[in-house]
Amino acid sequence: MVIKVYKLLNVDGRAKRAEVHTVHGVIQTPVFMNVGTAGAIKGAVSSMDLKEIKCQVELSNTYHLHVRPGDDVIKKLGGLHKFMVWDRPILTDSGGFQVFSLSGLRKIKEEGVYFSSHVDGRKIFMGPEESMQIQSNIASTIAMAFDECAPYPATREYMQNSVDRTTRWLKRCKTEMNRLNSLEDTINKKQMLFGINQGGTYEDIRIEHAKVISKLDLDGYAVGGLAVGESHEEMYRILEEVVPHLPQNKPTYLMGVGTPINILESVERGIDFFDCVYPARNGRHGHVYTNFGKLNLWNAKFQLDDRPIEEGCQCPACKHYSRAYIRHLLKAKEMLGMRLCVLHNLYFYNTLMEEIRDAIDKNEYQEYKNNKIENML
Amino acid sequence: MVIKVYKLLNVDGRAKRAEVHTVHGVIQTPVFMNVGTAGAIKGAVSSMDLKEIKCQVELSNTYHLHVRPGDDVIKKLGGLHKFMVWDRPILTDSGGFQVFSLSGLRKIKEEGVYFSSHVDGRKIFMGPEESMQIQSNIASTIAMAFDECAPYPATREYMQNSVDRTTRWLKRCKTEMNRLNSLEDTINKKQMLFGINQGGTYEDIRIEHAKVISKLDLDGYAVGGLAVGESHEEMYRILEEVVPHLPQNKPTYLMGVGTPINILESVERGIDFFDCVYPARNGRHGHVYTNFGKLNLWNAKFQLDDRPIEEGCQCPACKHYSRAYIRHLLKAKEMLGMRLCVLHNLYFYNTLMEEIRDAIDKNEYQEYKNNKIENML
Repeated sequence: MVIKVYKLLNVDGRAKRAEVHTVHGVIQTPVFMNVGTAGAIKGAVSSMDLKEIKCQVELSNTYHLHVRPGDDVIKKLGGLHKFMVWDRPILTDSGGFQVFSLSGLRKIKEEGVYFSSHVDGRKIFMGPEESMQIQSNIASTIAMAFDECAPYPATREYMQNSVDRTTRWLKRCKTEMNRLNSLEDTINKKQMLFGINQGGTYEDIRIEHAKVISKLDLDGYAVGGLAVGESHEEMYRILEEVVPHLPQNKPTYLMGVGTPINILESVERGIDFFDCVYPARNGRHGHVYTNFGKLNLWNAKFQLDDRPIEEGCQCPACKHYSRAYIRHLLKAKEMLGMRLCVLHNLYFYNTLMEEIRDAIDKNEYQEYKNNKIENML
Repeated sequence: MVIKVYKLLNVDGRAKRAEVHTVHGVIQTPVFMNVGTAGAIKGAVSSMDLKEIKCQVELSNTYHLHVRPGDDVIKKLGGLHKFMVWDRPILTDSGGFQVFSLSGLRKIKEEGVYFSSHVDGRKIFMGPEESMQIQSNIASTIAMAFDECAPYPATREYMQNSVDRTTRWLKRCKTEMNRLNSLEDTINKKQMLFGINQGGTYEDIRIEHAKVISKLDLDGYAVGGLAVGESHEEMYRILEEVVPHLPQNKPTYLMGVGTPINILESVERGIDFFDCVYPARNGRHGHVYTNFGKLNLWNAKFQLDDRPIEEGCQCPACKHYSRAYIRHLLKAKEMLGMRLCVLHNLYFYNTLMEEIRDAIDKNEYQEYKNNKIENML
């Protein structure tokens, strides 16, 4: 599985600018992955739209697809790329996060987790092998290791035990992924595996864990279990401590983060990959991003405002429609209102990443970041 | 207001093939107008999408736009064309139908109708002049006269009184429209006015009414008050009796109709314009049209069906996505599922009208219609 896929193009401070080569094309990093939980972006956004808004990587959720339509169905239909008609990279999470966050009744054992489906309550077991098998059926470009995303806050003892088990699970994930990738009827035999660093806000546990998993020579490394309740400052501090202990010549992925400012700060601390539901969720609520802060399009002051959400923006919403029209759609509960806001917000994030890459290319990241944040506040 | 706008290209039996010239371009008839109640097609369909699915005329509802965002707002923003970014023809209804169907509390007087808003209960008065003023503010291409859509069934006495009042209202509409079109600050000074024939299933009342309103030399004539509960056979019979008494050299419009078969039968009886919420509403429920009948995409048999909704269909859904994927989206409550079904259904209707026009052009309407209906049943 040792494939040279990561090409580091430039380093500006700790900010990395790289290319990740996959069977589904090249990813330019830093990158923001657009979250399509059940194989579609919420807000009536299609895979055709994703190309128009400059999405490089689509992210889908293993747990949701396992429950509905079923990974067996997706495999029979040729994998998720064919199912949702998307030929660029897809990353799937491991299902672990949903097991821990959606399921009230669950039991963690050495072999894995027993829990109840949030859809129909039926008993499900998922361990490292099951997660790899499901992700292999889905045939994503990048699979995530099955880990425990420990609750916040957690005692030191709980966290140490959890992280130790996550390490043992990671080794089982790697073994199972190697086996699956060697099978005749596996759809994507070059599926990549990213490990996940855990440890909460105990940086010594995190650093030790980072060192251990780095030796496993995986295709990439994520920092998980952040943005779960700790302060932004704590999150940045952890990144500063931990990222230097992950391989610089591999992708780093900060899971579930975050606001544009979170992303700008985390790129500076060496992160390549991001994902977050914020832009789509905020869009569905009529909250839209601009380079001068967020707007709430429900606000009465936009009633007669015939300007686009942001002047000069080339997204499908701003190219044609006014704030006044989109506000009317939201108030009239016309789905088109949500759709236009989601398209704008994802385009905003994807364009932000483009600017970030340009700034690192030019060794101007620090200056770019400071200006950008100042305008947004 | 006597502008020669209607160019009859061919007549095949009673089926008419014509062009209607408007300030917003030429309409090829027979035509199906795509219903965008509040200035947007339900199902997250934008005005850009409408062009892709071959929509010629968008239809919006005067009552809904009057209540929200307000026709004053739309006028300040330059009219509905600018507001929703649509440069082709728009037809607005008079608001009458909603006044009679949505409002529980209403009082019909000679001057107009007093009723309560379905949104906030506030008292509203609408008469012929008010309806014309609102439609002039919206600045649609074609305005509809303010009439009473009488309940079904209604006594002969109720119907005769209602139709007589509708005639008096129509004259007031024409006078007011002429006045509005002559005002300096009117957005569309060439707004057209269609009168509406009423009379329920009393064909003698309808025929007498048709003769009276035909003398008013309006831009077009609608048959209203059908498809409100009577049988399809009764509706076809009324059309056979009434349409010959409306001017052949003017557009005829059958309001709120209908299924593909209703349209095929009504074109044969001389109708040019149609509108109906069926294709969009059915689409939102996962019911999709094909040339071999309707499919319910919720059905389990489509779980592994990787074919498009209809083979060979060039709509945005069929060009890319499978029945299996769309079924999954509907079940997962992803808006994209509704959107794809609505796009397909409207494309299906718009394509049906294209075929109808071709068949009339070739004097093959009867044969085309019979084959088409046979396949659909």
